[in-house]
Amino acid sequence: MLQEEVKRELIAILGPTYVKDDMQTLVTHSYDGTPMLQALPDAVIYPLTTTEISDVMKVLHRHQVPLISRGSGTNLCGGTVPVHGGIVMVMHRMNQILEVDLENLTATVQPGLNTKKFITHVEELGLFYPPDPSSMSVSTLGGNIAECSGGLRGLKYGTTKDYVLGLEAVLANGDIIRTGGKLTKDVAGYDLTKLLVGSEGTLAVITEATLKLIPPPQYKKTMLAMYKDVYAAARTVSSIIESRIIPATLEILDHATIHVVDDYAKLGLPRDMEAMLLIEQDGDREAVERDIERITAICRQEQAVEVSVAQSQEEALKLLTARRSAFTALARLRPTTILEDATVPRSKIADMVIAIHRIAKKYEVQICTFGHAGDGNLHPTAMTDARDAEEIHRVEAAFEEIFEAAIQLGGTITGEHGVGLVKSPFLEWKVGAAGVEVMKAIKQAFDPLNLLNPGKVFAKESRKRVVIDRG
Amino acid sequence: MLQEEVKRELIAILGPTYVKDDMQTLVTHSYDGTPMLQALPDAVIYPLTTTEISDVMKVLHRHQVPLISRGSGTNLCGGTVPVHGGIVMVMHRMNQILEVDLENLTATVQPGLNTKKFITHVEELGLFYPPDPSSMSVSTLGGNIAECSGGLRGLKYGTTKDYVLGLEAVLANGDIIRTGGKLTKDVAGYDLTKLLVGSEGTLAVITEATLKLIPPPQYKKTMLAMYKDVYAAARTVSSIIESRIIPATLEILDHATIHVVDDYAKLGLPRDMEAMLLIEQDGDREAVERDIERITAICRQEQAVEVSVAQSQEEALKLLTARRSAFTALARLRPTTILEDATVPRSKIADMVIAIHRIAKKYEVQICTFGHAGDGNLHPTAMTDARDAEEIHRVEAAFEEIFEAAIQLGGTITGEHGVGLVKSPFLEWKVGAAGVEVMKAIKQAFDPLNLLNPGKVFAKESRKRVVIDRG
Repeated sequence: MLQEEVKRELIAILGPTYVKDDMQTLVTHSYDGTPMLQALPDAVIYPLTTTEISDVMKVLHRHQVPLISRGSGTNLCGGTVPVHGGIVMVMHRMNQILEVDLENLTATVQPGLNTKKFITHVEELGLFYPPDPSSMSVSTLGGNIAECSGGLRGLKYGTTKDYVLGLEAVLANGDIIRTGGKLTKDVAGYDLTKLLVGSEGTLAVITEATLKLIPPPQYKKTMLAMYKDVYAAARTVSSIIESRIIPATLEILDHATIHVVDDYAKLGLPRDMEAMLLIEQDGDREAVERDIERITAICRQEQAVEVSVAQSQEEALKLLTARRSAFTALARLRPTTILEDATVPRSKIADMVIAIHRIAKKYEVQICTFGHAGDGNLHPTAMTDARDAEEIHRVEAAFEEIFEAAIQLGGTITGEHGVGLVKSPFLEWKVGAAGVEVMKAIKQAFDPLNLLNPGKVFAKESRKRVVIDRG
Repeated sequence: MLQEEVKRELIAILGPTYVKDDMQTLVTHSYDGTPMLQALPDAVIYPLTTTEISDVMKVLHRHQVPLISRGSGTNLCGGTVPVHGGIVMVMHRMNQILEVDLENLTATVQPGLNTKKFITHVEELGLFYPPDPSSMSVSTLGGNIAECSGGLRGLKYGTTKDYVLGLEAVLANGDIIRTGGKLTKDVAGYDLTKLLVGSEGTLAVITEATLKLIPPPQYKKTMLAMYKDVYAAARTVSSIIESRIIPATLEILDHATIHVVDDYAKLGLPRDMEAMLLIEQDGDREAVERDIERITAICRQEQAVEVSVAQSQEEALKLLTARRSAFTALARLRPTTILEDATVPRSKIADMVIAIHRIAKKYEVQICTFGHAGDGNLHPTAMTDARDAEEIHRVEAAFEEIFEAAIQLGGTITGEHGVGLVKSPFLEWKVGAAGVEVMKAIKQAFDPLNLLNPGKVFAKESRKRVVIDRG
């Protein structure tokens, strides 16, 4: 429950319209894209300016009330569930493109701006912003920055981190800082920009970002390769990279995912395949044609059963859209879909896919695997039912073993989804006890009262997920 | 003076050969590439393994003795001068390439490895490591990582930060952490990797690094454009980028630098020019040819007086070598050369060059300017004499005004050299008081006893440089 005094002070800053604590609003902001997690905030606020946020933080700091800033809540790590209550701050009113600077190839944006809208806008100006999380038609850039979102173009173009040049952010005490700028080089002190990207709202509230834009590729070509053997598909991934070709997109879908996606998107894919690679190259026409030719030869050499190049942009788009629809397609199968993102060095993709199959079988759970093979970033996805506690228990045990397998292969517990609540019990597996201690000390340095998105990144004792009934 | 007990403990870890405190060794390690700075360490040590470093740190932590780790000391910010005494740790014995992984396109190296040697090695394997600081024939990769070194290829390829995927590091208390890995995507907690890159040895001792390699460009072409007007040259830089062309190298030399470099390298450059652009593009042959053609047209359109494309790799190499020799060429003119790296958004290059000329005139000091125009990263370089206190005073005043001008143009006090001792009084100008406080809190989180490279990044009151006589 929000203290009356805090509420009065928030209303004084934001106006009564933008401070809500009716039950419908609280429930609406009690969960995010992550299944089986829910916690009610004490209030929901909708700021319009950085100054308002700074003033809000000063109030919350004085009263020691937690703040969870969020965009559209598409994250999959429970990153914006207000587990300690407090204020959920929705950034959607701060949704402006403040500037596109064509001389410096930068854009300055507010955090509540929709990702897809931004990408479309810069494309219309003949520029390119590569990070393309699958949630981009709903997600916000602020959310992408908080989670360091990836996407299908990560292999060649990197992730959100690689495109954030500067930030404005409000600290836990209400101070406003500015990091970086329209600068391709800046080593004035510690790199606060890259530290804040991916810090999941636990270190500061991002209120403005200066993003790097690049010239768009002139030409694209998309192809498919089908395999009867997962190892052959994975070997193809390694062989392509070893041949010094970095495709723009290099996705893998396993047997089960091929079926589900084909049922959903009606592509007429062959049903007896163990794995499919979806490959896109972009760049100059000659280079793309040459790369696609070489990739085709590599696929054949590595025992692809079928290799086909999309004959038109429409066909290519259809294939990519089908891949992007994998989560949606899988989500239709059972009441609850849990999508994870264990990530390994790309040379270990086959081992990881096989390990996932073995683990799924061991725990008798249904797990489909697809993902960004070129990045080693896999999305093992469990189709389950939150109402079946016993099955959920098996799913959780299976994922725990999947994370362990990823770590053993030199990988990580999360490639692009973030730690949040869901992965926090496993953070130490990746970064070690000393690493967790350092991270906690950084958190303490930024936010000594633990007001910013408390309960995230760092685990309490328990590994249990908070299971709620959505049936 | 080193306590006898500490010395005994260090010898017990490293052996007597690798703990030195004779005066010759101390003097040799009392300065680095930065002019006019000197301070004696208490001892110099040469570790071979991470375990040794961890053990050393535990001893120093217990006795509260500062540690300054260094490679070849080529930095230009006083980054490795032991201003608080303590132990200088030279990393040259840890100079191995531990692995080049052709499947994952990574290399794992020790920090004392020479940069040029590493670049040559990976080139022989048909791979490419782009960061190319001008000091690379002497510098070490550990030093490059500590300072986040840039170079001539930064515009298209980024800087050291963009190529560090993972680190092993020893903390101030002797704990060993591992960050990142052979992973193109990893969001498990705060990005300690990018935080340690460019942290100038103040947060941890880097003991191993996993670096990203990329396929090398197939083809290169180099060209020169000469201008009677600095603004025209700067407008060309902006026009090239606005035309969606990102050259691999885009360097500017002002009138004075053209003279000095031509005297040194005997290129037969025209002497009546105000600015010269040195441009290189790489990539696929067709794309390079097309870009160079378009860049040539843009140069002409922007009033270049002369445009010439190198007709052979030898000629291209000669041009690039001449540019790389700028510092050496300038250093011949007067006893003391102070090279700075004020950086601005690239659209502000002309304003910055003009501001530097105006400021140099105002203070009657000789400043030549060259640098990475595409990055907005300029190197105004003062030719002076450390023995002339009055002139040095004017040089310092001029640089202070240059930093101020850079900040006013939306730039930074250092693009690629680091803050160290030299730029610490100006850090607040760039990041603000709240920014400095956050950085100090991070330093405190990592190194509460202030043992790692103390006195760097954060300024004491004074802005005076420690002037010593090298005459």
